[in-house]
Amino acid sequence: MPGRADVEAARDLVGPAVRRTPVVEVAGDELGVMGRVVLKLELLQHAGSFKARGAMNNVLSLHEGVEGVAAASGGNHGAAVAWAARRAGLAADVFAPASATPAKLERIEAYGARLHRVDGHVGEALAACQEHSEREGVPVVHPYDTFATVAGAGTLGLELEEQVPDADRVLIACGGGGLYAGVATALAGVVPVQPVEPALCAHLHDALAAGHPVDRPSEGVAADALGPPRIGDHAFALATAQGASSLLVDEDAILPARQWLWDHLRVLAEPAACVPLAAVLSGVVPVAAGETVALVVSGGNNTTLPS
Amino acid sequence: MPGRADVEAARDLVGPAVRRTPVVEVAGDELGVMGRVVLKLELLQHAGSFKARGAMNNVLSLHEGVEGVAAASGGNHGAAVAWAARRAGLAADVFAPASATPAKLERIEAYGARLHRVDGHVGEALAACQEHSEREGVPVVHPYDTFATVAGAGTLGLELEEQVPDADRVLIACGGGGLYAGVATALAGVVPVQPVEPALCAHLHDALAAGHPVDRPSEGVAADALGPPRIGDHAFALATAQGASSLLVDEDAILPARQWLWDHLRVLAEPAACVPLAAVLSGVVPVAAGETVALVVSGGNNTTLPS
Ligand SMILES: Cc1ncc(COP(=O)(O)O)c(C=O)c1O
Ligand SMILES: Cc1ncc(COP(=O)(O)O)c(C=O)c1O
Repeated sequence: MPGRADVEAARDLVGPAVRRTPVVEVAGDELGVMGRVVLKLELLQHAGSFKARGAMNNVLSLHEGVEGVAAASGGNHGAAVAWAARRAGLAADVFAPASATPAKLERIEAYGARLHRVDGHVGEALAACQEHSEREGVPVVHPYDTFATVAGAGTLGLELEEQVPDADRVLIACGGGGLYAGVATALAGVVPVQPVEPALCAHLHDALAAGHPVDRPSEGVAADALGPPRIGDHAFALATAQGASSLLVDEDAILPARQWLWDHLRVLAEPAACVPLAAVLSGVVPVAAGETVALVVSGGNNTTLPS
Repeated sequence: MPGRADVEAARDLVGPAVRRTPVVEVAGDELGVMGRVVLKLELLQHAGSFKARGAMNNVLSLHEGVEGVAAASGGNHGAAVAWAARRAGLAADVFAPASATPAKLERIEAYGARLHRVDGHVGEALAACQEHSEREGVPVVHPYDTFATVAGAGTLGLELEEQVPDADRVLIACGGGGLYAGVATALAGVVPVQPVEPALCAHLHDALAAGHPVDRPSEGVAADALGPPRIGDHAFALATAQGASSLLVDEDAILPARQWLWDHLRVLAEPAACVPLAAVLSGVVPVAAGETVALVVSGGNNTTLPS
C-alpha cells in the first residue's frame, strides 16, 4: 500500500507531464445547498481524465529497455496509457470492450495505440490483456489496483489540498477505487475523503457489506467508467482501515448532474464524473452553512451533448 | 472613461454575483511555442460569457424603481442581461438578429427574457432596442460602449492580475471593444493588454488606420460575437491613448484553435473566444522562452461539437 510519501514521490516524477487542473467555486444557492462547493475540473487533464496521472506514473517507472506496454480498461485508462506511452516513445496495446463509449475508443487510437476490441466487459478485456502480456512479455499498466497507479492518482489529492485548503470533505467517484485510494492516501489526516458510487455499480458498498471484495454486475449510465469486475484490493483495504463507507447515488440523479454542469458552467463531463455532484444535488451529501465540499469532475470522454 | 478605481468599484458591486472563473496553464510544447500560455476560462461564467460582468454591473447600478431593462446584441450580451435581470427580479426585453447562433437565442429565453428576433445584423437590433426603450421608458444596457459595461468587463482583468501575476502580455478578443477597454483599464501600468480581431471583423484595426471609428462589415465564423457595426468609442479612445495596435488573425486559424481546445482540454468554446488562442497557434503572437502569455477564452455559447 502506498503512503503519502509515495504519492509525493509520484508527484515529483509526473509533475511536469500532467496538468494541474483548475478548481472553480460554485455558490451554494446555485446548487440548492447552504454551503460552498468547489469542483476540481480534472476532465481538463491530458487524455480527458485523471487516469493520465496513474498511467504516466507507471510509464515513467518502467525498467530501462522496455519498448511497450499493455493496458485494459473501459476506455479512459486505455486512452491515458496510449497518451503516456506516446509521450515516452513506447508502443501501447490497449484492450477495451467493443461496446465502450465511442469517444474513448477514438482517443485510444488518436494517441497511436493499437486498439483491441474485446467482446464482453472490462473483465474480459483485462483477461485478454493479461494473455497478451504473458505472450509478448510486455508489462501491464493496471487501471486501478497497483501501487504505481494508486500513487499516481493520488497526486490529484495533493493539488486539491493546495487549491482548497479549507475543504471539510472531498467527494470522489469510485469504480475500481484507484482514484479514491490514491486521494484518500494523499489526504489521510488532512480531510475526509468520501467515495461515491452509483447504486447500480455498488462495488465498494457490497464489498464492505460482505467483508471482502465481491463480483457484482455494473449497470447504468456510468458503468463505462465505474464498472470493474470488483472493487480493487487497495481501495477495499483503505476504506476498511479508515472506516469509510460508500455513499450510493440514485441512477436517475446522474444525468441531471451532467445537465447541470453543462447549463451552469458549459462543462461537458462524462456521466461517471458527475456522480459526486449528483450526490450533492440529490441531497445524499448535505452541505451545511459554513461548510466547504470539494469534489472531482474526473473525466470528459463522452461527447454526446445533453439536451 | 472609467479608470482602475471604477473597475474596482464594479468588482465590489458585482463580486458576489459573478463567478471567479479559473485559469489553466498549458505547457508551451503542447502549443508549439517556447513559453507558457495561461488560459482564463471565462466561458464558465454565468450565462456562458464574460458579458455577465458588465450586465450585472449595469443592473445593480439602476435607479430605485426601475422595473425592467432592454438590451440588444449578437446574443451573448442578451443572455447575460436576461440572466442579470432575472437575478434582480426585473423584466428584460432582448433584441437579437434572427440569424443569431441558436444556443444564444435559447439562453436568452431560458433566463425568462422576452426575445425579439430582428431581421438584419446587430446594428438593426440595437436600433429596434433603442426605439423600444424610448417608447416604453426602460433603460438600455449597452453591450460594449458605456461606462458601466466597460467597468464591469474590467473586473475580469483584476482577477487575472491575481491569478497570473507573472503575465508578460494579455490577449483579448475584440468586437465592440468593451472587454478590451475594461481589461486594459484595469491592467494599465500592470501588463500590456493586446486586442486581437479576426481579419474579417477588423473594426479596431480599421478605426486606428482611419483615425476614427468607421463602419465596416463583419464576416466569418466569429462575427456572431465580434460583429458590431463599428468599434466602440471607449475602446478606440483607450487604444489611441495607450498606443495599442490591433493584431489580426486569419479566418482559417479560428476553428483549428477551437478544435485544439476541445482535443486537448475538453473545453468547448465558441469561435470568438478562440481568437486569442488562434493568434498563438498561428504564430501571430510569438511566445518566447521564459515568457508568459495570458489569454481569455471569453464564451461558450456555441454548442456545435467540432469534428
Ligand atoms: C471519469 C472516471 N471517473 C472515475 C473513475 C473511477 O476510477 P477508479 O476505477 O480508480 O475508481 C473512472 C475509471 O475509469 C473514470 O474513467
Ligand atoms: C464570447 C465573446 N468574446 C468576445 C466578445 C467581444 O467583446 P466586445 O464586444 O466587448 O469587444 C464578445 C462579444 O459579444 C463575445 O460574445
